[in-house]
Amino acid sequence: MDAEKIRILGIDPGLQVTGFGIIDKIGNQMIYVSSGRIKTSADSKLPPRLKQILDGLNRIISQHTPHHVAIEQVFVNINPKSTLLLGQARGAAVCAAVLNDLEVSEYTALQIKQAVVGNGHARKEQVQEMVIRLLRLEGKPGMDASDALACAICHAHGGLGAFANLYQHIKHGRGV
Amino acid sequence: MDAEKIRILGIDPGLQVTGFGIIDKIGNQMIYVSSGRIKTSADSKLPPRLKQILDGLNRIISQHTPHHVAIEQVFVNINPKSTLLLGQARGAAVCAAVLNDLEVSEYTALQIKQAVVGNGHARKEQVQEMVIRLLRLEGKPGMDASDALACAICHAHGGLGAFANLYQHIKHGRGV
Repeated sequence: MDAEKIRILGIDPGLQVTGFGIIDKIGNQMIYVSSGRIKTSADSKLPPRLKQILDGLNRIISQHTPHHVAIEQVFVNINPKSTLLLGQARGAAVCAAVLNDLEVSEYTALQIKQAVVGNGHARKEQVQEMVIRLLRLEGKPGMDASDALACAICHAHGGLGAFANLYQHIKHGRGV
Repeated sequence: MDAEKIRILGIDPGLQVTGFGIIDKIGNQMIYVSSGRIKTSADSKLPPRLKQILDGLNRIISQHTPHHVAIEQVFVNINPKSTLLLGQARGAAVCAAVLNDLEVSEYTALQIKQAVVGNGHARKEQVQEMVIRLLRLEGKPGMDASDALACAICHAHGGLGAFANLYQHIKHGRGV
């Protein structure tokens, strides 16, 4: 019997740029499907920008029909105004998922880094490096797409640190 | 010729309780249509709570078909976590409006109080009192509904302080 395929949409929400990354989990295998970013017009007012995020994710969900959505519990405490704006962008991303009756799992950056790199305090570049290795990517995804793919990978492993020791191997040149 | 009727939905967003208030503006007259609150289950996770806000406002929009949406630019800086949650609730409220292709106007609490009471630093009870007078309500709307109606009234007057002197009259017992 073939292993069940679970398609996961990872989202790294932001008002300016929302990253997305889609992977298929088939048994223990992870297969890259798609990734990219939704950019909003900085010179627009907030409501049309939220609509751009909503419409963009809606299109991606219609096109790729994921089974699960995993979204980063973003948190950048620059100032209260930025936090409120980020919250609204994240709210729009969650709305796109629930409007399509998809269940949403939330992961903190610490959980994602722990799951993907094996170190909750890994740098963004280390996360990107592991995403490329784990999904056998030929190119380098942008940072937003990479973070979204990392979130999807984290969900594929139940948020657990399945690769806790793998990054150490890579770092020491032992390959994957 | 009859004056044009403009139906305005005012929203006072919040994660626990989102207030809504609908008024009709016909010429210089304002007529109360409906108001109330959408409560979310405190024991649910964030995504289903955002769905409750989205679905609740969707139902209200379908039922009352407003032409404009006015939403309070809420801002309660208790702590960054609360600000992020509030932002997400507000994002869901804005999404409900833009999903129905309604244009959204945003007003700060200061603008609303200025427009309704004539004093940007008025207390919530003063706002409630003026909402009751201006809309000739027989009962007392809840605070969330009252704030949402105040937001709709603010929009009806183009965000301007049309009642700047009215509250002074009421305060001094001269009636409306």
